[in-house]
Amino acid sequence: MKMNQKLSTLAAATMLATMSLPAEAGDKELLEVLLENGVISKQQHQELKKQYGKNSGTQISTKGGIKAKSEDGDFSFQFGGRVMVDAGYVDEDVSKHDSGTEFRRLRMFAKGTLYRDWGYKVQVDYSDDALAIKDAYLKYKPWGVTIGNFKQPISLEELTSSKYITFMERSLPTVFATSHRIGVGINKGGNNWSAAASIYGGNSEDNEDGQEGYGLGARVTFAPIAEKTRAIHLGAAVAHEEPLDDADVVRFRQRPEFHATGTRIIDTGSISNVEDIEKFGLEAAAVFGPFSLQGEYLKVDVSRESGFDDADFDGAYLTASYFLTGESRPYSAKKGKFGRVKPKAKSGAWELAVRYSTLDLDDGAIQGGEEDNLTLGLNWYVNPNVRIMANYIDVDAEVAGVDDDPNIFAMRAQIDF
Amino acid sequence: MKMNQKLSTLAAATMLATMSLPAEAGDKELLEVLLENGVISKQQHQELKKQYGKNSGTQISTKGGIKAKSEDGDFSFQFGGRVMVDAGYVDEDVSKHDSGTEFRRLRMFAKGTLYRDWGYKVQVDYSDDALAIKDAYLKYKPWGVTIGNFKQPISLEELTSSKYITFMERSLPTVFATSHRIGVGINKGGNNWSAAASIYGGNSEDNEDGQEGYGLGARVTFAPIAEKTRAIHLGAAVAHEEPLDDADVVRFRQRPEFHATGTRIIDTGSISNVEDIEKFGLEAAAVFGPFSLQGEYLKVDVSRESGFDDADFDGAYLTASYFLTGESRPYSAKKGKFGRVKPKAKSGAWELAVRYSTLDLDDGAIQGGEEDNLTLGLNWYVNPNVRIMANYIDVDAEVAGVDDDPNIFAMRAQIDF
Amino acid sequence: MKMNQKLSTLAAATMLATMSLPAEAGDKELLEVLLENGVISKQQHQELKKQYGKNSGTQISTKGGIKAKSEDGDFSFQFGGRVMVDAGYVDEDVSKHDSGTEFRRLRMFAKGTLYRDWGYKVQVDYSDDALAIKDAYLKYKPWGVTIGNFKQPISLEELTSSKYITFMERSLPTVFATSHRIGVGINKGGNNWSAAASIYGGNSEDNEDGQEGYGLGARVTFAPIAEKTRAIHLGAAVAHEEPLDDADVVRFRQRPEFHATGTRIIDTGSISNVEDIEKFGLEAAAVFGPFSLQGEYLKVDVSRESGFDDADFDGAYLTASYFLTGESRPYSAKKGKFGRVKPKAKSGAWELAVRYSTLDLDDGAIQGGEEDNLTLGLNWYVNPNVRIMANYIDVDAEVAGVDDDPNIFAMRAQIDF
Repeated sequence: MKMNQKLSTLAAATMLATMSLPAEAGDKELLEVLLENGVISKQQHQELKKQYGKNSGTQISTKGGIKAKSEDGDFSFQFGGRVMVDAGYVDEDVSKHDSGTEFRRLRMFAKGTLYRDWGYKVQVDYSDDALAIKDAYLKYKPWGVTIGNFKQPISLEELTSSKYITFMERSLPTVFATSHRIGVGINKGGNNWSAAASIYGGNSEDNEDGQEGYGLGARVTFAPIAEKTRAIHLGAAVAHEEPLDDADVVRFRQRPEFHATGTRIIDTGSISNVEDIEKFGLEAAAVFGPFSLQGEYLKVDVSRESGFDDADFDGAYLTASYFLTGESRPYSAKKGKFGRVKPKAKSGAWELAVRYSTLDLDDGAIQGGEEDNLTLGLNWYVNPNVRIMANYIDVDAEVAGVDDDPNIFAMRAQIDF
Repeated sequence: MKMNQKLSTLAAATMLATMSLPAEAGDKELLEVLLENGVISKQQHQELKKQYGKNSGTQISTKGGIKAKSEDGDFSFQFGGRVMVDAGYVDEDVSKHDSGTEFRRLRMFAKGTLYRDWGYKVQVDYSDDALAIKDAYLKYKPWGVTIGNFKQPISLEELTSSKYITFMERSLPTVFATSHRIGVGINKGGNNWSAAASIYGGNSEDNEDGQEGYGLGARVTFAPIAEKTRAIHLGAAVAHEEPLDDADVVRFRQRPEFHATGTRIIDTGSISNVEDIEKFGLEAAAVFGPFSLQGEYLKVDVSRESGFDDADFDGAYLTASYFLTGESRPYSAKKGKFGRVKPKAKSGAWELAVRYSTLDLDDGAIQGGEEDNLTLGLNWYVNPNVRIMANYIDVDAEVAGVDDDPNIFAMRAQIDF
Repeated sequence: MKMNQKLSTLAAATMLATMSLPAEAGDKELLEVLLENGVISKQQHQELKKQYGKNSGTQISTKGGIKAKSEDGDFSFQFGGRVMVDAGYVDEDVSKHDSGTEFRRLRMFAKGTLYRDWGYKVQVDYSDDALAIKDAYLKYKPWGVTIGNFKQPISLEELTSSKYITFMERSLPTVFATSHRIGVGINKGGNNWSAAASIYGGNSEDNEDGQEGYGLGARVTFAPIAEKTRAIHLGAAVAHEEPLDDADVVRFRQRPEFHATGTRIIDTGSISNVEDIEKFGLEAAAVFGPFSLQGEYLKVDVSRESGFDDADFDGAYLTASYFLTGESRPYSAKKGKFGRVKPKAKSGAWELAVRYSTLDLDDGAIQGGEEDNLTLGLNWYVNPNVRIMANYIDVDAEVAGVDDDPNIFAMRAQIDF
């Protein structure tokens, strides 16, 4: 029962060359081969092809969550989430703080694509037994246009996912970052640049109060080097925000880079009679193999009416990180932000990091205080989806001439799917 | 190595004719053919069949969300949701209104079937960072019986999903529709009729207050014509609702067909000493190709005790809609409501619509006000799941002799999956 | 075109014996057979194998929800939930109660496995339109270590899922069970034993208040008999809990085994100056075919400071259950708790149950009251996932010398997926 091997080989080659559809991974090809080899008749071939055609051709995968994709790629769906459990202790100085445990983030999301061009995402946070809408939008992909709730384009650290930031909390000056707001934005990016612009209202919560400001923001980033293990990132952002007449109030206050405490040591209090706010951000980062640097300067100018003095506040941070196990922080020039660390070894990746951050909320009559934090961090990336973090924070604050210098030790267990 | 084509053709035909199981789309049929053609032995056939048998045979598909269905159809699961982002501006007259952005609806749901006869659905809304239970029930399909939280059977517009309604908001008189309540209901329908009856308590929120009324409702619809592009719908509904002793209060108030404002121009205030409420609804709709008409009349009779006068309120609306691109509003006679518009062209469907709605909350001592709205709507159905809406609403209200006539412009971006 | 059957049979046998990979259920085996039988060439075999290799090999199934599992079993995902709808009537005596309907539980969850060793679960409850975090954790499976929010190890009835408990509500003394807390726990179990230990902070809600106690707990169970339809369970648990300085308050109060009422007849009120709490639990259960017994004794010792008297409270219950349709309550010795009942017949399983429970919240100056309940239960397990329950509760309470003896009738419809 030997068959003509040469003929069939040629036939198979031809068949494989002429197959144009992203086939249902194997079945259709097998039918072609069996037909070519004369093992099944044309009619059988037809009938069987019809049978196989009934398969939806939807590709499913799980890496903890679930992903589905239609055969033609026009439709897709993903369900996932994240769990971050924290425990920490504050060695108090002047101000009172809460030590203890908390879910820092507990989220589920659904995202997907419809008719190739339209994307969506719905992500909600459940931590503290309270609901918070995070990313929630629809997107017209060909134009890079997003409508809904998304992070407004200012601050590298704010825009980098909480799953990937180097320390448990973002640095002090990110209090000036706008974060999630309902608006319309456009995002574009190339091999060594990204640009984003946006117009937005209040956040999803504001709407209930019937008080809603609006804002305009833009950010550009440029990467002179954007290789896999070497990158240089430069970025700048600017935003103009205006409170509505019946809510011309703004307030900046910040936790000491530890979230389980409700206490914000430095706090401007409510600043009234605000006409508008200008925000400025400068970003720089560099990755050289296992070593990386990242720094930002953020500034807000608050213009006030009715004879009140304008107020300016600013802050900055500088982070240095080193992977003992040789990984590099993965930078995406197209998105202008950092992504997921994938350990090289089965035993995971280990990262040592140090950060200095400063925030000045004193200006003129507004004495919100000044704070300088020095943080040491140790991260164990058990695998790409599980991370154990330990942070030690040396807080050095001064409010109205009074020093307040607590020390904080905190740990996090994190999984995302 | 030519085989006996006639024989194998016959064999294949026989095989295909005798296959009774909804096969695993191809694999089993191929094995039969290979056995018939003598390419594999009976033992190989047996072994391979066993191998293929290990496949779950679950069919998966994605059209943005995800659907799974067991081979025998006894079990199924679907996950999906909807995002509606609004922005609007109110040109105020007398009353103050909020302009701005909001998530009008932000929902995820899971629904499915268990053991063929039992269905369930869990749908929650996250908009305004507050949780609201929407459809949440279990269902015994053979009897059409639903237990849980579902829309009570009154008002065509209320029962038609917010994904499919013609304007951004339902019309003024739907304030009288009962909407979601926890109860037990029965639904039946045929080619040109539907009927629903229900007994219900309070809604999912009421329970916490320990104050819960109850109600009885029924609705019947009849469709003398129920074709794909031509339909006539007639319907009537009635409900009896009774507040409990410790909450014999009822209140009707309505936003001006724009939701981001918190202001209800017309408002009966709390009506005390309510004995019971009777609700009546009449519905009519017609579809003639791209043109459709829809109208309803809704009335409530509030019976009061302790010498207080009874109060009657009513309202009505009439909507005319025309698809510039030739689609028809899809009517389901079996469900007695409208469904999803599917654009004919790649460029989507365009619909022009106009609605007049009126609501009278004045009766005797209760001077809640009267409102007449004229709304112009333009809808672009980008594809079956994405819709962009624009509404202009000319409000003409009178409360206690004072005219209040704001104008409103609003837009919505909507996606469902 | 007959082939050499003996040869091919031998070949197939060899092939099947040497196949080591958990193959993609059939396709690969078919290719081997076709190659062995000389129907396809080696090159064709190679090409086709490559094509089939593109399949993700993810196994999907639905039994109402959805499950996905990677071919190697290292990754998995499951989405599901539960709906419990209650209606009940309280025939009041002294205290006022709410009758009516409610969602007793309305939940969705996602759980899964990442990189074989790491598991997670996120489960939230939506009932009462309020969010509550239930199971939410990550887990290192090789050590049985869980980090996050999970049920602390005390009380057989508390640890048995609400989907599987015999009556609509757990018994009065489970007010002493700790239930969900954020912590770190370890679980181990064998053929006839289980052991769990845990250290925990407050629950997910407490954190917001900045008041958080901590606790240590352990539980061991032993099953002299642990067969499918015969089991004996013995268990003991102990816990030490300490309130923080700024919240040295504890309170025990309990609904009358009916949840829709907000009224707790017996209630210690806030007990101040608490130094620490010791909890003790003893458990016993027996399954003999369709008959089962289950009982617990729970006790708390409240140690108080500043000259206040210590207070001791305790309670117990005994449940007897009989399956008219012959099923047995499924006991897992490894987990030390009961699981899902699977009806034997198409018409479902019927269970009759009776419970006596008692709770004494009187001690010294604290006169919280004493309550003895007798409950009759009838359960219809329509299928493994749908259950209809009816409970009649005869309450016999005494608070500060006043008898309060309401009777309650309640029903539940329950589905889980």
